[in-house]
Amino acid sequence: MNRLDGREWNELRSIQIETDYLKHPEGSVLISFGQTKVICTASIEERVPPFMRGEKRGWIAAEYSMLPRATETRNIREAARGKLTGRTMEIQRLIGRALRAVVDLKLLGERTVWIDCDVIQADGGTRTASVTGAFIALAMAVQSYHEQGKFKGFPITDYLAAVSVGLDAEQKTILDLAYSEDSQANVDMNVVMTGNGEYVEVQGTGEEASYTRGQLNDMLDTAETGVYEIIQLQKQVIGPAAASIEEKFSDDGSGRMV
Amino acid sequence: MNRLDGREWNELRSIQIETDYLKHPEGSVLISFGQTKVICTASIEERVPPFMRGEKRGWIAAEYSMLPRATETRNIREAARGKLTGRTMEIQRLIGRALRAVVDLKLLGERTVWIDCDVIQADGGTRTASVTGAFIALAMAVQSYHEQGKFKGFPITDYLAAVSVGLDAEQKTILDLAYSEDSQANVDMNVVMTGNGEYVEVQGTGEEASYTRGQLNDMLDTAETGVYEIIQLQKQVIGPAAASIEEKFSDDGSGRMV
Amino acid sequence: MNRLDGREWNELRSIQIETDYLKHPEGSVLISFGQTKVICTASIEERVPPFMRGEKRGWIAAEYSMLPRATETRNIREAARGKLTGRTMEIQRLIGRALRAVVDLKLLGERTVWIDCDVIQADGGTRTASVTGAFIALAMAVQSYHEQGKFKGFPITDYLAAVSVGLDAEQKTILDLAYSEDSQANVDMNVVMTGNGEYVEVQGTGEEASYTRGQLNDMLDTAETGVYEIIQLQKQVIGPAAASIEEKFSDDGSGRMV
Amino acid sequence: MNRLDGREWNELRSIQIETDYLKHPEGSVLISFGQTKVICTASIEERVPPFMRGEKRGWIAAEYSMLPRATETRNIREAARGKLTGRTMEIQRLIGRALRAVVDLKLLGERTVWIDCDVIQADGGTRTASVTGAFIALAMAVQSYHEQGKFKGFPITDYLAAVSVGLDAEQKTILDLAYSEDSQANVDMNVVMTGNGEYVEVQGTGEEASYTRGQLNDMLDTAETGVYEIIQLQKQVIGPAAASIEEKFSDDGSGRMV
Amino acid sequence: MNRLDGREWNELRSIQIETDYLKHPEGSVLISFGQTKVICTASIEERVPPFMRGEKRGWIAAEYSMLPRATETRNIREAARGKLTGRTMEIQRLIGRALRAVVDLKLLGERTVWIDCDVIQADGGTRTASVTGAFIALAMAVQSYHEQGKFKGFPITDYLAAVSVGLDAEQKTILDLAYSEDSQANVDMNVVMTGNGEYVEVQGTGEEASYTRGQLNDMLDTAETGVYEIIQLQKQVIGPAAASIEEKFSDDGSGRMV
Amino acid sequence: MNRLDGREWNELRSIQIETDYLKHPEGSVLISFGQTKVICTASIEERVPPFMRGEKRGWIAAEYSMLPRATETRNIREAARGKLTGRTMEIQRLIGRALRAVVDLKLLGERTVWIDCDVIQADGGTRTASVTGAFIALAMAVQSYHEQGKFKGFPITDYLAAVSVGLDAEQKTILDLAYSEDSQANVDMNVVMTGNGEYVEVQGTGEEASYTRGQLNDMLDTAETGVYEIIQLQKQVIGPAAASIEEKFSDDGSGRMV
Repeated sequence: MNRLDGREWNELRSIQIETDYLKHPEGSVLISFGQTKVICTASIEERVPPFMRGEKRGWIAAEYSMLPRATETRNIREAARGKLTGRTMEIQRLIGRALRAVVDLKLLGERTVWIDCDVIQADGGTRTASVTGAFIALAMAVQSYHEQGKFKGFPITDYLAAVSVGLDAEQKTILDLAYSEDSQANVDMNVVMTGNGEYVEVQGTGEEASYTRGQLNDMLDTAETGVYEIIQLQKQVIGPAAASIEEKFSDDGSGRMV
Repeated sequence: MNRLDGREWNELRSIQIETDYLKHPEGSVLISFGQTKVICTASIEERVPPFMRGEKRGWIAAEYSMLPRATETRNIREAARGKLTGRTMEIQRLIGRALRAVVDLKLLGERTVWIDCDVIQADGGTRTASVTGAFIALAMAVQSYHEQGKFKGFPITDYLAAVSVGLDAEQKTILDLAYSEDSQANVDMNVVMTGNGEYVEVQGTGEEASYTRGQLNDMLDTAETGVYEIIQLQKQVIGPAAASIEEKFSDDGSGRMV
Repeated sequence: MNRLDGREWNELRSIQIETDYLKHPEGSVLISFGQTKVICTASIEERVPPFMRGEKRGWIAAEYSMLPRATETRNIREAARGKLTGRTMEIQRLIGRALRAVVDLKLLGERTVWIDCDVIQADGGTRTASVTGAFIALAMAVQSYHEQGKFKGFPITDYLAAVSVGLDAEQKTILDLAYSEDSQANVDMNVVMTGNGEYVEVQGTGEEASYTRGQLNDMLDTAETGVYEIIQLQKQVIGPAAASIEEKFSDDGSGRMV
Repeated sequence: MNRLDGREWNELRSIQIETDYLKHPEGSVLISFGQTKVICTASIEERVPPFMRGEKRGWIAAEYSMLPRATETRNIREAARGKLTGRTMEIQRLIGRALRAVVDLKLLGERTVWIDCDVIQADGGTRTASVTGAFIALAMAVQSYHEQGKFKGFPITDYLAAVSVGLDAEQKTILDLAYSEDSQANVDMNVVMTGNGEYVEVQGTGEEASYTRGQLNDMLDTAETGVYEIIQLQKQVIGPAAASIEEKFSDDGSGRMV
Repeated sequence: MNRLDGREWNELRSIQIETDYLKHPEGSVLISFGQTKVICTASIEERVPPFMRGEKRGWIAAEYSMLPRATETRNIREAARGKLTGRTMEIQRLIGRALRAVVDLKLLGERTVWIDCDVIQADGGTRTASVTGAFIALAMAVQSYHEQGKFKGFPITDYLAAVSVGLDAEQKTILDLAYSEDSQANVDMNVVMTGNGEYVEVQGTGEEASYTRGQLNDMLDTAETGVYEIIQLQKQVIGPAAASIEEKFSDDGSGRMV
Repeated sequence: MNRLDGREWNELRSIQIETDYLKHPEGSVLISFGQTKVICTASIEERVPPFMRGEKRGWIAAEYSMLPRATETRNIREAARGKLTGRTMEIQRLIGRALRAVVDLKLLGERTVWIDCDVIQADGGTRTASVTGAFIALAMAVQSYHEQGKFKGFPITDYLAAVSVGLDAEQKTILDLAYSEDSQANVDMNVVMTGNGEYVEVQGTGEEASYTRGQLNDMLDTAETGVYEIIQLQKQVIGPAAASIEEKFSDDGSGRMV
């Protein structure tokens, strides 16, 4: 056991979740995975993008950004640069796609939920913290509309959380990488799973390296335990939204993680 | 006395200041003026912009942004839009210019201090909260370099704070306007002052309206009392940096606000 | 008395105004403040921006630019650069806002007046020359529509002019700064006033410097005499539009500058 | 067996590879996976990007684009739009990252290899065809430099190929999806592997759907057989470069796919 | 006779034309003038640009691009740069304008034909190859719509082809310049002509040089013979479209080139 | 004789030239061709663009723009739009290329001459007025440097002027088209010629029309007489620069226009 912050190889960092963090958005949360801190908000707009008009379905669009000094050295603002980096594009596409996998877009109606994930402090795992926090903001926004009777049925179908896992420089599997670990890792994998224990997204990348099927399996096993823990936390903080989600589960629920 | 939030006409909102808010920047603060919340950071870079190279002087550059859902309805991100709005440009130019008025750029040396003001929640007065918070982040960053012996002398020459003042729909002077007041005001004035009671910036704008010299004078009197109170708060939170600033004052100090 | 061009401290530069300078715009003027020359045009468009549709009000939008060689060294064109500088944004926002303060937007009807200020030669005070010239172009465009019976009432409510004032390197107040003065000044203030002697905009900025309340008062007094002179000139050149404006004044008119 | 084009569920489309397709680039290929056709080129530049100067390592940068009418309905050119889409960014980042995993950047020296993948006809699987073709162009460009004695050792360490795999609407695993299959699939997975049978990239995405661990395993098994076949083809077309790569393999080579 | 590739001064390079080159576009061709290779496609869209709506006329819009490694040294992609170069703009405007000269836009109906010319290999004369190939793609797309009875009459009124001609360093006239010739030429002229032997576009440019009326005449004579040959080739490859065009010619047809 | 403004078919509009129009540029002129008015300036910068460094040659770069209300309806500023139109690009490339044809870039030394042509009022022929005026500004700027002994020899080798010519709706040749003529013309041709009667640029464009060789010849004949007249005017206004140019002519000068 020799992780820099004293964690076990399969141990998550301390996760803090402060819901209703901002007053304007329909749902908002400040989520921390260790020193990584992200403000996630969900804003419901009563219309869909032009390409979806008339389809009687909703949409979930996500945007991601980092404060210039979220990182050790200051980054140039994308607004000043005039365009988004590829990394930002990739992350915000991932967040939107992941959330859409647990939402019944027909039940959402012709509405767009805008998810904004703004990293105020970065220490590795900003995309997994963003997906995890975004789900909470989304659930709370949707629950508040649900309580106002705006949906025909509760549109969220399951929990959703994400975690990172990787192979360190000595090829050992580690869970929830901090920045100092991530920058040294041979393999970096992000896993997004539902409460039902299914995958929504698996992205495993060798950094000038490759990995075997056995290593892939170890990483997936480890990620699963991490996601399970995180969903337990989500369940606690979203309160009534959790009840609404669970009503959606079929009676048997065999094999569910949560 | 009929302000919406029960304040007197010349009463500031509650001001909260949390210093060392982020771990990476040399100076950082979360400042709230009522419901308006801004993260201000100061990042010191060991070089100056190209146009200043070789001048043996430093520079202070400021950037300002709002989270999309800092406001009641969601704003399009400037990074997504690909360019800054005129409002953002105007505010960030104001912040940089104001701070440069209380910094001896020669003592700063060939360094740039990047000031980032990111509004996470907006309820009026974001630019004055930004100037006020940015001064604190700057003072703390500069003090930390000062303690490392990096300057020939402490480069900050005085305190600096800002407040808004205006004429409401009934032409009455009010201090520190919340958004609901600002959107109804006939005149909106931002005043930036030093600890010595001098003006660095006065910007008074009629919104499809004009104002008399008498009204201007009333607004300036009111702003002065507000700035005085705010500087008292700054003084408390910046600790050792306050001592460094005050050593710069001449002995008599007659007429100083602080 | 030691201004570089021999003027008294409170003396304006020679102001030349050539109305109907271009054939296409509804109103146009070439205005010179000394060596500063600006082409100002007013173009009336029979619709408003999308965000105002259906409000039964008009809008005044202003754009400002400088020819690349208006200045001593050639500037890169903003069109080539692909974006506006902050300075341009700030000035064009000021021009639009100032003009809207003397226009009854309801009487204007659902129309946009586009104001274009193009500096062909710059020698300090381009923004005050622009506001002053833009008012003339606006008045002439509006008068021509008025004569065609397109308004329910004349929509301009008062004269409007602007002047700069500042503190020179020896802290003396000077009026209408030429570029050589402006670049040395400690304080630069732009004052926009109506014919009624009221303020529409006061912007006083210390350039790495601050100023006292007494100095502020001196600058405001000086600016007022400058604006008064300029409005006299406007009155002469706009002819029938002046009569239309003056009909709007109440009988007593006590305390009016013009 | 009911794929639209009559293939077995685990059957690749016909793959055509035309090397030395263009006269200017150091390496070039026209690769087809069925109706999907991509021109891949490798251009060697004798310098590295600014952020890598002096590190004595090379770099591989990839760019990806589609002709406007590569697809059934015409797409707006990204050059006309003025910015890249997120999809393009994501794909070109994937191509560059994948190739870097089989290149010893130190042996490459301070050079950049630019990989350009231009899709002239799209029918699903453009990113996997691009990775596969880009490897060939890279190998041929590197071999030609190698023959000129420009490297201390052959910098490519292994073969590299990619294939797509997915779950169709009936949750059955299918290999190498054509567009008509891809647009109906529940899960879309791209797998990039080395000649050694290791993973460089696994990206499995539920499209408004999720998938189980068992399904993930089936897809990985299927992808592996596809990659194995493709690498056999690569080996045939790259000729002398294949010999150079194989010299790098250790003697035993146990478990190698090729 | 000393052209680098052994051609006579008035000899075209070998021209290859592969029609129906791509499966999606209504018309497509791969055209080669020697080593210059361009993919030209014609896409018919059932609407016109906003500025033409309701005019009961169609439009032809052209876009031009080069693959980054079409040239000897790699060019930065215009999509990466974020804007088109002046050269690209000039060429695509020329292509669109030239084609519109032989199309009856009223017979086209309220449709836009998008012409895309993508240079995959450049060796001089890309714009003339583009015009020539674009005409073929257009003719084939229009013929296919014509066969479906979508037009009131066949909208193409004549053949159209282009060729380059120039003065080499010794002031001798040469036809169809390859890149090595073009980069040394004193004068570069592009001539676009109809099947009727008339000019649609003549653009003759001295490259830091000028030319006499006699030289201009020689170049025009030479271009005419080149265009004549090219139109013969077009006629062969477009098959039924040629018949449709020729039906448009008046009976006598005196003086026609084809 | 039936031109709208009463001119003969081969008659130029009245041409006015005001030299030294602005105080900052090395050369400047306000040129009018009838109602078309363009400010042309020449700015000499003591360096060349990066791609030319060390070549011991100079460069001439041109930029062109129109004030938004130079035209009958207001145009959106290219700076606001964030990019140049194709038309602007085309014109500024033409101006630069044309001027370079009469300048010995080696004699210019490692300097860039920036030509700025800003159309303040447009009534047809802005590009030919720009070329003509730009030559005057260039000649005056170069002459002033020449008088300061900055060149080894006078770098301008000949006069340069441009004129438009066209075929009207009745296929008649007309010289120097005003906007009302240009917008109706079948063919629009711009001809740039030297004082020696040679062509630098011929651009003849059918507007949804074509033209015969005979018509081309008529247009060229007519353009030549127009250019001749314009060069006479240039000669008068550029004074000492004319003498410097003429010293460059060989003794016989047989066949020279001027």
